[in-house]
Amino acid sequence: MTDQLISPVRLTATDAPDQPPPGPELDALYRGFERELLVPLWTEIGDLMPPHPRSRAVPHVWRWQNLRALADQAGHLVPVGRGGDRPAIALANPGLGGKPYATPTLWAAIQYLMPGEDAPEHRHTQHAFRFVVEGEGVWTVVNRDPVPMRRGDFLPQAGWAWHAHHNAAATPMAWIDGLDIPMQYQLESQFFEYGRDTVSAQERATPQRSRSERLWGYAGLRPVSVPGAVAGTPLLAYRWQDTDAALTEQLALEDEGYPGTVEPGHAAVRYVNPTNGRDVLPTIRAEMHRIRSGTQTAPVREAGSSVYQVFDGSGTVRVGEHEWRVARGDLFVVPSWQELTIRSEAGRDDSDSHALDLFRFGDAPVFEALGLDRVEVAR
Amino acid sequence: MTDQLISPVRLTATDAPDQPPPGPELDALYRGFERELLVPLWTEIGDLMPPHPRSRAVPHVWRWQNLRALADQAGHLVPVGRGGDRPAIALANPGLGGKPYATPTLWAAIQYLMPGEDAPEHRHTQHAFRFVVEGEGVWTVVNRDPVPMRRGDFLPQAGWAWHAHHNAAATPMAWIDGLDIPMQYQLESQFFEYGRDTVSAQERATPQRSRSERLWGYAGLRPVSVPGAVAGTPLLAYRWQDTDAALTEQLALEDEGYPGTVEPGHAAVRYVNPTNGRDVLPTIRAEMHRIRSGTQTAPVREAGSSVYQVFDGSGTVRVGEHEWRVARGDLFVVPSWQELTIRSEAGRDDSDSHALDLFRFGDAPVFEALGLDRVEVAR
Amino acid sequence: MTDQLISPVRLTATDAPDQPPPGPELDALYRGFERELLVPLWTEIGDLMPPHPRSRAVPHVWRWQNLRALADQAGHLVPVGRGGDRPAIALANPGLGGKPYATPTLWAAIQYLMPGEDAPEHRHTQHAFRFVVEGEGVWTVVNRDPVPMRRGDFLPQAGWAWHAHHNAAATPMAWIDGLDIPMQYQLESQFFEYGRDTVSAQERATPQRSRSERLWGYAGLRPVSVPGAVAGTPLLAYRWQDTDAALTEQLALEDEGYPGTVEPGHAAVRYVNPTNGRDVLPTIRAEMHRIRSGTQTAPVREAGSSVYQVFDGSGTVRVGEHEWRVARGDLFVVPSWQELTIRSEAGRDDSDSHALDLFRFGDAPVFEALGLDRVEVAR
Amino acid sequence: MTDQLISPVRLTATDAPDQPPPGPELDALYRGFERELLVPLWTEIGDLMPPHPRSRAVPHVWRWQNLRALADQAGHLVPVGRGGDRPAIALANPGLGGKPYATPTLWAAIQYLMPGEDAPEHRHTQHAFRFVVEGEGVWTVVNRDPVPMRRGDFLPQAGWAWHAHHNAAATPMAWIDGLDIPMQYQLESQFFEYGRDTVSAQERATPQRSRSERLWGYAGLRPVSVPGAVAGTPLLAYRWQDTDAALTEQLALEDEGYPGTVEPGHAAVRYVNPTNGRDVLPTIRAEMHRIRSGTQTAPVREAGSSVYQVFDGSGTVRVGEHEWRVARGDLFVVPSWQELTIRSEAGRDDSDSHALDLFRFGDAPVFEALGLDRVEVAR
Repeated sequence: MTDQLISPVRLTATDAPDQPPPGPELDALYRGFERELLVPLWTEIGDLMPPHPRSRAVPHVWRWQNLRALADQAGHLVPVGRGGDRPAIALANPGLGGKPYATPTLWAAIQYLMPGEDAPEHRHTQHAFRFVVEGEGVWTVVNRDPVPMRRGDFLPQAGWAWHAHHNAAATPMAWIDGLDIPMQYQLESQFFEYGRDTVSAQERATPQRSRSERLWGYAGLRPVSVPGAVAGTPLLAYRWQDTDAALTEQLALEDEGYPGTVEPGHAAVRYVNPTNGRDVLPTIRAEMHRIRSGTQTAPVREAGSSVYQVFDGSGTVRVGEHEWRVARGDLFVVPSWQELTIRSEAGRDDSDSHALDLFRFGDAPVFEALGLDRVEVAR
Repeated sequence: MTDQLISPVRLTATDAPDQPPPGPELDALYRGFERELLVPLWTEIGDLMPPHPRSRAVPHVWRWQNLRALADQAGHLVPVGRGGDRPAIALANPGLGGKPYATPTLWAAIQYLMPGEDAPEHRHTQHAFRFVVEGEGVWTVVNRDPVPMRRGDFLPQAGWAWHAHHNAAATPMAWIDGLDIPMQYQLESQFFEYGRDTVSAQERATPQRSRSERLWGYAGLRPVSVPGAVAGTPLLAYRWQDTDAALTEQLALEDEGYPGTVEPGHAAVRYVNPTNGRDVLPTIRAEMHRIRSGTQTAPVREAGSSVYQVFDGSGTVRVGEHEWRVARGDLFVVPSWQELTIRSEAGRDDSDSHALDLFRFGDAPVFEALGLDRVEVAR
Repeated sequence: MTDQLISPVRLTATDAPDQPPPGPELDALYRGFERELLVPLWTEIGDLMPPHPRSRAVPHVWRWQNLRALADQAGHLVPVGRGGDRPAIALANPGLGGKPYATPTLWAAIQYLMPGEDAPEHRHTQHAFRFVVEGEGVWTVVNRDPVPMRRGDFLPQAGWAWHAHHNAAATPMAWIDGLDIPMQYQLESQFFEYGRDTVSAQERATPQRSRSERLWGYAGLRPVSVPGAVAGTPLLAYRWQDTDAALTEQLALEDEGYPGTVEPGHAAVRYVNPTNGRDVLPTIRAEMHRIRSGTQTAPVREAGSSVYQVFDGSGTVRVGEHEWRVARGDLFVVPSWQELTIRSEAGRDDSDSHALDLFRFGDAPVFEALGLDRVEVAR
Repeated sequence: MTDQLISPVRLTATDAPDQPPPGPELDALYRGFERELLVPLWTEIGDLMPPHPRSRAVPHVWRWQNLRALADQAGHLVPVGRGGDRPAIALANPGLGGKPYATPTLWAAIQYLMPGEDAPEHRHTQHAFRFVVEGEGVWTVVNRDPVPMRRGDFLPQAGWAWHAHHNAAATPMAWIDGLDIPMQYQLESQFFEYGRDTVSAQERATPQRSRSERLWGYAGLRPVSVPGAVAGTPLLAYRWQDTDAALTEQLALEDEGYPGTVEPGHAAVRYVNPTNGRDVLPTIRAEMHRIRSGTQTAPVREAGSSVYQVFDGSGTVRVGEHEWRVARGDLFVVPSWQELTIRSEAGRDDSDSHALDLFRFGDAPVFEALGLDRVEVAR
């Protein structure tokens, strides 16, 4: 390893390292480097090897009511049917140079679908999911299996799965999409393919339950006909009813004196692939957190970044030096190694009906797969 | 997933998608997006979801004799001992905006060490290795174990291992370093720490064999005292004598009619972690290839990037649209999904002494860990 | 490997191999062997290395009505409370020399519990489960978590988990126990420990749902507070309602033209550990099969043995050379590599209400862990 | 689980449990059980669920000079060529009822081969190895690759690999075979198949090095042409020269103050599969131990059994209540959970030339695969 490069003066410095004395010979050397496409490390001011992650991304919050209003405007101004285009609008972290990236590895966008619209079938290596903060009426069709989308549902779609979708509702519907686009863009691992031009009547069906749920939607049971571990989850919908019940039970167990919550007053479930019990997608972790009314979480720093959306309730969030009051639909990012604390609003009573529910997704599976995960909890 | 975004008109287009009709309302919408830090996808010209990887990195060759001469100049102009600074010079891929990155995920640098120099102890999460194309006399000290470096040796150093080094030779020595700096920079996973100020006499020793080799350097044998799989390889040196013998035997087996080579006339060994038989480092694959005199390899395309250095012999390399004649020490990069063909020089006879030996390192373990690996061989 | 030993004449012969000519020298040799505790292979008539498994266990059926009657008699004759003793009665395969083994690796017993009885806390390395073919009222207490037992429920209990139980019902209750006692007896891997003398009031509670179900009973969701894979399943009850629904859906999907069943008319679910998607116990596989009315399964041979219990319906089963008509509660064994075919009774109509439901458990995870699994389906 | 069965009075008792009062009704009940092939647990005196493993196998030593003499006698009395039969003689543990089993899971036999003999090709699911305590001249042919056998060599042969062999020497040769025959016999997992009648000239070659060694015999290097993990090791010979050097280095490192040995004065290497770094065979662990002159090992108890052979030196071994002085070639067994202590003979000096070298094989991989491993070291 380039030991020289990582001296305090060099790679971890925020100010310029000492420079060799100028002169015609040094100038000639630098011209030589330039000609040969080389970078001498002693002129490289930067932060390639910092003492800990110093994220280019910055903590930021996007307000749902503003997003929603702009999406609605766009839905009417940008005509439907323009080659499949529709008012999809990505969060652009202010620290990432105007790119449509929420964090250096994650993409988050608000999707807005007008009645009757649909999209042609295609697939790509990027892993993706949808999370619905409000509304219903759209069916996403994954591997020809139509999956209804409703408030609180989490709908993963593993890389290279064929997908399309259609809006059978009479009203527009909005939701958020999460993908690993920035990470795959950096890795240069992306493939994309178009599918059939038209979808069959069967795929335009609007069943209340996907076939994937009928096969995989039973805790601890799997069809004998599908052996082994499958990289992308075969379960295409994780319904709010289950998520809510699981969180409710964790807090109830805590009240009864049993373990289950992450910390006092803080319940959390992770969406997992039933074929291996691991993260729902190979590159994306997704969770739902419930913070009991009037509770504050312990400060946490993690290597890796996350995006949160408030699903219900309200509270105050502190990320690094930033602090915001957040409410339903608001989205915020937690860059790598920035400290996070969440405080839910205190209700008049401490019933769970005043709890703060937060959907979260992040890049933790990538960090774990490569042995780069690190967490620090200040308790 | 943002289905709309990935229509042919949108994300995979090289030309701009159709735009909505201009007007004051659209202007207001765009100002709204800007204010709220949003990027409407229909104005995003780009290639976020291409049909296959289109690397920003370009195929390029760096000539060893030029590198070596510049390193030598720098060694004399940039004074020794400047806070540990020394003439380390990184390859800067012409497609990556002047950054010291060989590919979007890999760092490669020429290291040049003057007699008597040494570097203080430190560690970092970046995985690293050294490969020696010429010279000897330097001892790298990993986890307090001094490891001599000689021509043809491959010396891995897993992330978070303490390391330092010292040049006990009377002459300068040059080698190449490979690291996953660009990938960890993108992921924002880096940690760095300084060690003790001074190294003990024991660490300044110059044994001909490291302790790691004495414990782990026997094929198929492991010390019972170290159970299980260790993420970073405990073996700190892979000696040329073994590598050469293994390649020689593969070609001999081929001559005798047995399997062993990758394809006719093309032998290859991979450096592996003896505790799990997998890649020597969690994020970096390293291999040595030997192509028999007058042989041409089948064209290969892989998702993921590699850097090659000619260790011995000469030949012609074709990467995508580029073709170069290469000789000892020359370095070239193969960006993601660019086709590679190698043709070794035909000798007067077809003895292996005219073979082309190529050291290679790449990011394949990352692709495999995330299920993103893809290879296409045109046979 | 003892090549000589495995010639046709030797180890795979059913008749005696040729013998060396008798005489005083040979006699002396044999006396030498005996004295030194050696066995010369040429006198060993046997089947240590047969061409395929030739099970010592034989196919056999036990009739539920007989078992139930004997258990009932025993329940009254063998007084309650005799040091925790109760009328537990094990199936003894007629081929296994009177040992209480259903197959060479599996134990199956009928348990019969009188009202008010309970058992002290203890634990053992043997993996175990209970399956309830009729009745309710007993709570098993695993790791202090009381779990109600009802018809159709499957209740695993991983090795080394503390357990006890109590019958809160006013009537006796019977169920079957399955364990890996014979396998662990052969391996000599068994440990056993007593727990506390008395159980707390909390453990004598009779909740309708165990705490394990409240934490783990949601498909695709896991508590964030319990990371990683746990060897024994943390889910302590797999309820009939779910199992039945999953089987019903598989057959419905088949009717609609989609995959899901094992073969036409044959639905099957496997009970799995939600932390890794693998078998519910490290040494025991458990499944529920539903065979549509009037359907015959394809003949199957598997390395490894299984025990089946008819849960509902009736039909005809053929195992090797044996054939029986079976009905609710009947138990039968399928020894290693014996061909199995099942034919469900044809109903007046082909509604699923006439389907044959079969609970099955076997030693497949052991075979898979050691790479010894082999299946042959005659389609 | 059959809680009732495992009360102190019942399954873990060494004396008979209390019995119900006799009478005609009880007699009738017992006749019913017998008729229905059932075993009431309260009459079962036994040790199915003991507090810890109580091995049926007993500690025992077999003396090499006696084995060797009997094998030699047999070699002359039992004519060569009797259908492939040859004087193979298995260790029969005195606790296992005369069966040719060294322990409940392991088979060990002395093989004795006369000049010119050879055996036809075949394969079986049983995993096997040979270990050579003296002599040379035989080539074992595994998957058509001839492998020479010499003193100190360990030669594994994974299940289902084709094998044959031939003695090219002018003198008889003896060695030991180890297999998992008893375990596979209990599991009923065995398959066996004959190969070609005659072996080709190529397979009758007598190279000094197998092809497997030429491909896989380099520490930390693997042929790129063979990807992934292979269940049975592809390396067919582990040579004494390497084993000896690795042990020597461990003790030298200890002398220099570095880790490496298992405990003071006790070096040990494990033979492993280079494709995964794990045990050389899926069901058998094999190791070589060197105990410095005058050293005593810490008492160890392990779940699972082992067979040891003294390779060199002499010493005293204590297994459970048994103690023997052992010397070159002597074999002894350590049954499950029996305490083992080894004391090497004190030499006139403490040079390694007086060390005690012990070859060991055991069933640990089975225990680990099933999560049943347990070790207790009394330090």
